[in-house]
Amino acid sequence: MGETIQSVERAAAILRLLASGPRQLGVAELARAMGLPKGTLHGILRTLVHVGFVEQDAATGKYRLGATLLHLGSSYLDVNELRTRSINWADALAGRSRESAWIGTLHEGHVLVIHHVFRPDDSMQTLQVGTYLPTHASALGKVLLAHDPYGEHAQPLEPRTKHTITDPAALEAELDQVRARGWAAEMEELTEGEVAIAAPIKDRRGIVVGAIGIRGAVERLATDGRLDMQFVSYVRDAARAITRDLAR
Amino acid sequence: MGETIQSVERAAAILRLLASGPRQLGVAELARAMGLPKGTLHGILRTLVHVGFVEQDAATGKYRLGATLLHLGSSYLDVNELRTRSINWADALAGRSRESAWIGTLHEGHVLVIHHVFRPDDSMQTLQVGTYLPTHASALGKVLLAHDPYGEHAQPLEPRTKHTITDPAALEAELDQVRARGWAAEMEELTEGEVAIAAPIKDRRGIVVGAIGIRGAVERLATDGRLDMQFVSYVRDAARAITRDLAR
Repeated sequence: MGETIQSVERAAAILRLLASGPRQLGVAELARAMGLPKGTLHGILRTLVHVGFVEQDAATGKYRLGATLLHLGSSYLDVNELRTRSINWADALAGRSRESAWIGTLHEGHVLVIHHVFRPDDSMQTLQVGTYLPTHASALGKVLLAHDPYGEHAQPLEPRTKHTITDPAALEAELDQVRARGWAAEMEELTEGEVAIAAPIKDRRGIVVGAIGIRGAVERLATDGRLDMQFVSYVRDAARAITRDLAR
Repeated sequence: MGETIQSVERAAAILRLLASGPRQLGVAELARAMGLPKGTLHGILRTLVHVGFVEQDAATGKYRLGATLLHLGSSYLDVNELRTRSINWADALAGRSRESAWIGTLHEGHVLVIHHVFRPDDSMQTLQVGTYLPTHASALGKVLLAHDPYGEHAQPLEPRTKHTITDPAALEAELDQVRARGWAAEMEELTEGEVAIAAPIKDRRGIVVGAIGIRGAVERLATDGRLDMQFVSYVRDAARAITRDLAR
């Protein structure tokens, strides 16, 4: 890898800072976070505002992410082959299971949600495309971790509920089981009252490139703390169908 | 406005190029489109790959948008005050009208969809958040154009259907009407068989910062080519409610 361009790297770092934490930052806060003089940041911020990647609040003078990023993010979805090839199968999975369907890929140690089909009923649901799920506390994440050649689960195993696996050895045992049986379960480990199931999607080289699954109330998907295997079969059917599609 | 940083501007231009057109471009195509030598682009592309904003296809060596942009776009939505304040009203509007509800803002001469609530039924719908609608051919766009102090309707008036307004004088007359009555109609001007209604959302200074509306089949929303005024009242109620919220 050759040299990178410092000002572009710094611009990217500013955008990442604005996407995390309080999400409106002044130039002094940005300078402190990046360990750079304010003067260095001014030119980069001015350029980011100029190109629409950053907006400056008229009242406070603080900076936040700009609307152009929303359009670029939506364009990313159009070009993502896994998502394009999976959309119809995810729709079918949601229809068959009557639960919300999810597709995720591993991105910087998180599960990045690239597709989300609402549970087919009238209830109000919030679209989660573009958000991160924790790898160790989600079924999608366990599938992706279990097949990650780089062992990207360097994130701390933070508890989300009292059921979250926080012991590294216990997580390793769980991932062994995921590899052995070909699917992952999440039993109220991310959200109390919710369970999820996920299975791996492989590309034509046999490499796991994503995971697909469903998520819903424990009362609907499980009986006496055990998942209803019919839902597991729906998820695995969908994962195999997409894998076959990607192999073409 | 002081100096901007050339390499950051060029990085932004590369991302915009990748978000439009074929969406996978080689370094030679990018160099031609930007009128720059390939050597100049290599360093910027390398940096964009390094920060996750761009991905390089392993097989073709071509470049496409990267997953980090999806996460940044989703973070933009979290920080957008108009969207945050409007979500509940848009849900209520979709529930009341039994049609899909939409919120848009003007961005670079297009309507940028910042929120979209599905029609509350079991039908398959595709989320349009982050996509652009043409200003002259959409109800949301007409509302935004009618109240745009900068007259951003510099986009060519391209026909989308045989009903699209393509004559600048006819569009001006239509915008006069939108200003006079306080809402806009779209009668199969964007998509055959679909009509839409939109009304302006104002901030505390009285400036139009967005538009909210509904969209649906002409058979459900209109009779003999005329919109059912009950739907118009639902849309205007929602727009006024958000305007009141923003004034607080």
